[in-house]
Amino acid sequence: MSADRIDAVMSLARRRGFAFPSGEIYGGEPLAWDYGPLGVELKDNLRRQWWTSIVQQRDDVVGLDAAAIQPREVFAAGGHLDTHSETRTRCRSCGLSRRVDPAATGLAAPDLTAGRSPAAVTIAERSCPRCGTRGSFTDPETVSGLLGVQPDRADGETGRHYLRPEAAPGTFVNFANVMIAARKKPPFGIAQVGRVFRNINDPGEFLLRSREFERMELEYFVEPGSDDEWLEHWVRQRWDWYVDLGLAPGNLRLAEHPLTELPPYAKRIVDIEYRFLADGQEYLGLEGITNRADHDLTAHAKHSGADLSFFDQERGKRWVPYAIEPAANLTATVLAILLEAHDCDEAPNTKGGVDKRTVLRFDPRLAPVKVAVLPLSRNPELSPKARDLSAALRRRWVVEFDDSQAIGRRYRRQDEIGTPYCVTVDFETLVDDAVTVRDRDTMAQQRVSLDQVERYLLERLPTG
Amino acid sequence: MSADRIDAVMSLARRRGFAFPSGEIYGGEPLAWDYGPLGVELKDNLRRQWWTSIVQQRDDVVGLDAAAIQPREVFAAGGHLDTHSETRTRCRSCGLSRRVDPAATGLAAPDLTAGRSPAAVTIAERSCPRCGTRGSFTDPETVSGLLGVQPDRADGETGRHYLRPEAAPGTFVNFANVMIAARKKPPFGIAQVGRVFRNINDPGEFLLRSREFERMELEYFVEPGSDDEWLEHWVRQRWDWYVDLGLAPGNLRLAEHPLTELPPYAKRIVDIEYRFLADGQEYLGLEGITNRADHDLTAHAKHSGADLSFFDQERGKRWVPYAIEPAANLTATVLAILLEAHDCDEAPNTKGGVDKRTVLRFDPRLAPVKVAVLPLSRNPELSPKARDLSAALRRRWVVEFDDSQAIGRRYRRQDEIGTPYCVTVDFETLVDDAVTVRDRDTMAQQRVSLDQVERYLLERLPTG
Repeated sequence: MSADRIDAVMSLARRRGFAFPSGEIYGGEPLAWDYGPLGVELKDNLRRQWWTSIVQQRDDVVGLDAAAIQPREVFAAGGHLDTHSETRTRCRSCGLSRRVDPAATGLAAPDLTAGRSPAAVTIAERSCPRCGTRGSFTDPETVSGLLGVQPDRADGETGRHYLRPEAAPGTFVNFANVMIAARKKPPFGIAQVGRVFRNINDPGEFLLRSREFERMELEYFVEPGSDDEWLEHWVRQRWDWYVDLGLAPGNLRLAEHPLTELPPYAKRIVDIEYRFLADGQEYLGLEGITNRADHDLTAHAKHSGADLSFFDQERGKRWVPYAIEPAANLTATVLAILLEAHDCDEAPNTKGGVDKRTVLRFDPRLAPVKVAVLPLSRNPELSPKARDLSAALRRRWVVEFDDSQAIGRRYRRQDEIGTPYCVTVDFETLVDDAVTVRDRDTMAQQRVSLDQVERYLLERLPTG
Repeated sequence: MSADRIDAVMSLARRRGFAFPSGEIYGGEPLAWDYGPLGVELKDNLRRQWWTSIVQQRDDVVGLDAAAIQPREVFAAGGHLDTHSETRTRCRSCGLSRRVDPAATGLAAPDLTAGRSPAAVTIAERSCPRCGTRGSFTDPETVSGLLGVQPDRADGETGRHYLRPEAAPGTFVNFANVMIAARKKPPFGIAQVGRVFRNINDPGEFLLRSREFERMELEYFVEPGSDDEWLEHWVRQRWDWYVDLGLAPGNLRLAEHPLTELPPYAKRIVDIEYRFLADGQEYLGLEGITNRADHDLTAHAKHSGADLSFFDQERGKRWVPYAIEPAANLTATVLAILLEAHDCDEAPNTKGGVDKRTVLRFDPRLAPVKVAVLPLSRNPELSPKARDLSAALRRRWVVEFDDSQAIGRRYRRQDEIGTPYCVTVDFETLVDDAVTVRDRDTMAQQRVSLDQVERYLLERLPTG
C-alpha cells in the first residue's frame, strides 16, 4: 500500500461521509475524528462483531460499561498518573507542542530535575517547524497524558478527577461486584467498549494519535500460573478475529515488547499490528495483548481497602487473579478495514468499453450500507415499486434509496462505499415483477422475482 | 408504583448486575452509574431500538458520532455557557453543595451581583442537612453546568475546552459536511447517541441526575414554517416508540414548557415524562422535543464564518433550516423500563403450593438475556447436550447456561432478570431428544424436539 493510496482512501472517507476532522468549521488542527453517516455504521458493525465474539458467543465473559470520569485515587492506584505521561517541548513563539523521545535525545527523566542537560540545550536551540522561530523551544518537561476535568470547585469536596485513558480501571474497580452478580469464577472475563481520552495536542498521521477514540477491552481473569497459556490463547483468538473480518495475514504481524522495556504493570505485551504503508514498512498497532498479572487488583485492593481476591473453594485457598488484557483500538481498526477494503479495477461502461472503478470490498458484516435500491428512472410507476421494496428491506438492513443520476454513476457510488448488493427496478419490472440484483465484487447481475428478493438477500447478508 | 417498589427494583438492579453506583470501592457519594453485565445489554438493546426506528427504517435520517470534547467557542456560540448553569450554595463545614431554585427563593440572578439579598441571607442561615452545622452555607452563586477539561497547558495553544453536555453541538457544526456527503436536503435529520457530561456534585434520586449519562438525540432540519407541524409529528412518533416498547400510556404524560419560561434557544419544548412514583405523582423526564428554530445554525455560522444554510433549488432561494430536536435520556429510559417491567405474582412450587415470584416483564426485544439453558442436573450425559444447545443458541442470542441449583430457584432467577424463555434439558431428553421450553409470563411449558428448538425460538424472539 502506497502513501498515494492512503491519501485516496482518506479523501474518499471524507467525501463520502465516513469521517470528518473534528470541529472543522472552527479551524485549527483537528485532534479527533467525527464519524459521519457511513463511518458510524462501519464502526458500530465492528463493535458488534467484537461484542458477539467476545461476550455473546462465550459462556465465560460478561459485559460492563463504567463511567469515563474517575477520581484521582483510581488512577493513582492503577499507576496511570506515572505511566501515562510523556516528555514535551513547546515553541514559545507560536505554541507548537512536540513530543521528545527521551531515549533518542539521551535525555532521561532525572535530567529534568537536575537542571538543563546538554540534550535540553540542543532542543531549545532548534528552529520551530511551524513558525520558523529559532531557539524558541522550552526545555523538555514531563507532561501528564491524562485529561483532568474541572468540576464545580477544584479544591472542593469532589477532589481531582480525570477522564479515563483506557477502560481498564473501571473494570478492575468493579471486579468483585461483577464476579458476584454474574456468579462467575476464574477463568472469566469482563468486556468494555467505550470512548477514552488522552492529553494530546499534536495528532499523529491520519489522526491515529487523537485526543479521544474508542477502545474495546477485555480483562480476562485467570489463575496465576495459567497466565502464559491464556495470553497465547488470546493472541491467537484476536489474530483470527482480524483475519476473519478481512485483514490479510500478510498485512498483519505480531510485535512483542522487549521484556526489559515493559511498563511496571506488565509481565508481557504482544501487539497485533497492521501494515498500513507497504513502501515504508510502517505498521500501526491495532491491539495490545497484555499480561497485567495481579498488578491492578492488588493495587486497587490496597488503595481502597476492598477485597479483590477470589476464594477458590475447590482448593480451600484465596488468591488474586491475573488479568490477561486484549485491548483493541476501535478507531485504528476502522482505518485498517478501510485501507484493506480499498481496491481499484475496471467496470464495463455503456459505450462497450471499460471505466476504472474504485470499490471498497468490505466483508458484508461490516459494510455500512447492505443494499441499494435503484429505480432506473424517476417514473410514476417505477418509483412507488422501488420505494415499497426499499421500505421492506429497511426492516432488516441499512438501505440506500437513490434515484438521482445515470445508473452507471449510481453503481460507481455504491461500489465506492462498499455496498454488497444493488437492486435495480427497471421498466421490465412492470412486466415481469422481477428486479436485477448486482453483486459488488463480481458485478454479475441476476434477475430475481420481487417476492424473492428478501430471501435472496437473506441468504447472502447478515441481519440484525 | 410505590417508593417501596422502587427500592425493590433498585435493589434487584444492583444484586443481579444491572447497575452499580460508580466507584463504589473508593466510597463517597456516587455521581454516576456503572452498567453491569445485564444493564449493558438492556441499554444496548434500547439504543439499537432507537437507532433502528430513527435511522435504519427512515430514508430521511442519517447517523453521526462526533467528539465529546469541543473548544470553548462551540459552546459559546451554542449558548451553553449561559444556559447550562445553575445557582448553588455550599456548606463551608462539610462541603455539601446544593442547588438553589432562584425562582422559589425569590433570588434572581441580578441580586447576586448587587450584594446579599434577603433570600441569600435566609439560605446562609439554614442548617446543613449533612453535618448539621448552622449558618455554614455560602451565599448562592452561579456555577457553570459544563465540565472543563484541562489539557497540557490551560493557557496554551489549545485554549479552553469542555465536555459536551448534550450531543447537539457536534451535530450542528457538522451540518454542512453531513448534508453534502449524504446528499440530503431538508426535511432530513442527523442522529447521535452518546455519552454527555455535566458538572453535578449532588446526584438526584436514583442517580437520575448524574455527572455522565447517555443521550439519544435527533436534529431534524426542516423548512421554516413547517416546524410546528414537524414538532407535532415527532412528539407522536416518540410517544408511540415508548408505548411500543412497553411503557403503559397511563404512566406517560406530555408536559409542555410555558412559553414565557423557554430558554433562549427554544421556540417550543414538549417533554415526555414517565410516572415513576404513582403515590407522589412524581414524574421523570424521558425526552424533550424542542423546536430550536434556526438558533444553532445561525449562531455557529456567525461565530465560525461557515455557510450553514441550504440553497433551495426549486424556489431559487437560500434559507437556514429550523431544527426539531427529539432528545431522549437513555439512562432515564433504562430506569423507566426496569420500573415498568417489574411485577410480582405467584408460581407453583414443588410441594403443590405456590411461592411468590418477582418477574421483569421486558419486551423480548429489550430483555438482556433471551434464553436460559438449564440442565436438570450435573450429569455426564445431560451436561454435554445442554452445553451443545447453549453454544448453538449463542450464535443468535445472549444465552445463560446455569446448572447450579434446584430447578425452581433457577427459574426464579431467570424470571427476576426477565429472560423470556428457559429451556430445560432433563432425563427424558436422553430418551425423546426433546426439551421443555418454559414461557416467562405464562409459565406454560412445552415439549419441543431438540432439532426444532432454534426454529421455535426464532418465531418468538428477535435476532441480531
